[in-house]
Amino acid sequence: MAKKNAFYAQSGGVTAVINASACGVIETARKNKDKIGKVYAGRNGIIGALTEDLIDTSKESARDIAALRHTPSGAFGSCRYKLKSLEENRREYERLIEVFAAHNIGYFFYNGGGDSADTCLKVSQLAKSMGAPIQAIHVPKTVDNDLPITDNCPGFGSVAKYIAISTREASFDVASMAKTSTKVFVLEVMGRHAGWIAAAGGMASSEDCEIPVLILFPEVNFSQGKFLKAVKEKVKKFGYCSIVVSEGVHDRSGKFLADQGLKDAFGHAQLGGVAPVIANMVRDKLGYKYHWAVADYLQRAARHIASKSDVEQAYAMGKAAVELALKGENSVMPTVVRKSNKPYRWSIGKAKLSRVANVEKMMPKSFITKDGFGITKKCRDYLAPLMQGEDYPPYGKDGMPKYVQLKKVAVKKKLDKDFKVK
Amino acid sequence: MAKKNAFYAQSGGVTAVINASACGVIETARKNKDKIGKVYAGRNGIIGALTEDLIDTSKESARDIAALRHTPSGAFGSCRYKLKSLEENRREYERLIEVFAAHNIGYFFYNGGGDSADTCLKVSQLAKSMGAPIQAIHVPKTVDNDLPITDNCPGFGSVAKYIAISTREASFDVASMAKTSTKVFVLEVMGRHAGWIAAAGGMASSEDCEIPVLILFPEVNFSQGKFLKAVKEKVKKFGYCSIVVSEGVHDRSGKFLADQGLKDAFGHAQLGGVAPVIANMVRDKLGYKYHWAVADYLQRAARHIASKSDVEQAYAMGKAAVELALKGENSVMPTVVRKSNKPYRWSIGKAKLSRVANVEKMMPKSFITKDGFGITKKCRDYLAPLMQGEDYPPYGKDGMPKYVQLKKVAVKKKLDKDFKVK
Repeated sequence: MAKKNAFYAQSGGVTAVINASACGVIETARKNKDKIGKVYAGRNGIIGALTEDLIDTSKESARDIAALRHTPSGAFGSCRYKLKSLEENRREYERLIEVFAAHNIGYFFYNGGGDSADTCLKVSQLAKSMGAPIQAIHVPKTVDNDLPITDNCPGFGSVAKYIAISTREASFDVASMAKTSTKVFVLEVMGRHAGWIAAAGGMASSEDCEIPVLILFPEVNFSQGKFLKAVKEKVKKFGYCSIVVSEGVHDRSGKFLADQGLKDAFGHAQLGGVAPVIANMVRDKLGYKYHWAVADYLQRAARHIASKSDVEQAYAMGKAAVELALKGENSVMPTVVRKSNKPYRWSIGKAKLSRVANVEKMMPKSFITKDGFGITKKCRDYLAPLMQGEDYPPYGKDGMPKYVQLKKVAVKKKLDKDFKVK
Repeated sequence: MAKKNAFYAQSGGVTAVINASACGVIETARKNKDKIGKVYAGRNGIIGALTEDLIDTSKESARDIAALRHTPSGAFGSCRYKLKSLEENRREYERLIEVFAAHNIGYFFYNGGGDSADTCLKVSQLAKSMGAPIQAIHVPKTVDNDLPITDNCPGFGSVAKYIAISTREASFDVASMAKTSTKVFVLEVMGRHAGWIAAAGGMASSEDCEIPVLILFPEVNFSQGKFLKAVKEKVKKFGYCSIVVSEGVHDRSGKFLADQGLKDAFGHAQLGGVAPVIANMVRDKLGYKYHWAVADYLQRAARHIASKSDVEQAYAMGKAAVELALKGENSVMPTVVRKSNKPYRWSIGKAKLSRVANVEKMMPKSFITKDGFGITKKCRDYLAPLMQGEDYPPYGKDGMPKYVQLKKVAVKKKLDKDFKVK
């Protein structure tokens, strides 16, 4: 049989650098045309595979594929769609394998977090048992930095950089206004369970640029009394205070400070709006004038200030995924292995998907200061290299970054049955 | 009498580039040491002058002063403190003139918006009538872009760039998620009365990068019916929609969509939180899943992505202010005069403060599309040059921008009376 085609899909929340991984996958596959046929991408992630809605990436110019490296978001569309367990919906997995077989797909590159690592693993297992083997390689991606084994996840370093810079900038602003106006600034950041992104707010302050920052981690049960005392102390000492609050902050009973009662397609609680809750608390109890911001998508889409380390690693993970496939590997994920901090050196390792799937890496306790509101030196040493370097996109004469919008030409369908995604 | 000293102060909300103006003032004064003595800065703006709390900028190194050019916010502190009218509080103006006389200050450089232009004018008039003449030069600054005569205001171009880029980036994000998740993204931006900043959101979409953006201007009375219809149409056509909403959006009766009932020191209503109002409206009436962000201080402090035009003009305005003073001018403000759009060329003009003070420049009607939700080509041609070019700050090994924190050494007091600021 002729050489096999590859399938690539983006899963879950997108990042500033997930397209750099796509770029790594496609460019590396193109360099190995003798071994890999075409790279088909799922339109809107795995839904594209289920509905046989594939994009032929060979129709995209080399220039446009190269531009993916500096384009945020998911160029082929992503989705929040978690495949059920094999027992609950075996039909979905079988359909994937049918679609892959119909398009002579032998390589499955799935770019996502813990849930998609699990899907990746199951597809590989079932394909084997069905006699239609697929090499399934997971490409790590998550702003939440919560995948195990890998030192860090592509996507995280750029959010960290954005949050740290934004916190420093807003803090400079508040410092100049504090005498007669705003004394407390609150920035709400992503992170439901793990405080990695919130921790990055601590990088706003450094030895050569001291800034009073308090961090509210999801790992630390919120205590109003302790928090207000800390704010008051900072304002007394510095005249102002910045607060970086994770959307997932909750009290001792587990109640989120801002629970809107919504759930997303993965069944996760949909949060938002904890910043105004904290801000109003500060005003009501301490009387300080406040401002608050909610970064939301801006933080994970901010390709304009992406970390160079992050972009390089995102690309490298995509490239490594293809290289692992060519070496005959299956059910694995390339990882980042940290070699040293100063200077920052890293290499590429690999992890078995059975050890990655559905495992959530939390912040080590040793990364949070004893008072629960700050980050330790150990945390700083971990974060700094991930935020290192700038990787600016090109800009047009209108002052705007040149991000690419692909043509996304559909592959002709080969199956006669439609598949309804539930 | 020996050469006179100069006084410089920052007023009102700070910007990403107001320190570039400070840099322009101080560096130009330093180059003219034969004519200008020391530059004293007001600690926390005009309050520093009233309380005789002056900062001796001659104690700052040339390197630190140069670093002001790439440091956001107000390095000497600003304040929201509007002097009352001469009739209501003549004592305040007299105190200013006493302090200036005590420190041999002959030049008053006031860096702010419409209110501070008014203060500047009155100080000059009163000083003259009191026989202690002061050359008062206003240095334009406002993110709101609402000063008359000058083509644009330093500070605005960088906010515009930030909002346009953020809107483009978040829109790319939503586009990739829209199939199964978020279909509508709402970004709240500054601008109480004038929609200049909101208009910049329209630049997210361009000929070579089409994005469905709806803008809610304070200039256009909000109509829920029309708005929801427009959102529905965009989502139908593109699969998603981004909405940029000005904090000052109000209905026909003048009621703000998000009025918290707060007022700032200038007596302006303090707004915030219109984004969640709009987002909830979209969900309740159309059933679309949404995300929303509030940029708040991040937008005006975002020096990391400042517009090069803006930085250059901010510096040039500071430099020109000193040069105007040296030419014997009084009660004037340097202005930006646009010469051509393509290529963008501008020169420096001047305006009498009597024509600047308390005049608010609104968006021309011809800048808003007929449906009230977009910007016209005329508006694009106006905005693009102001957002042109990047002017990146230097970065450290921790991935953070190197912004300067000055020493701010106090000048010894010479008056024996304290002055209580009301």
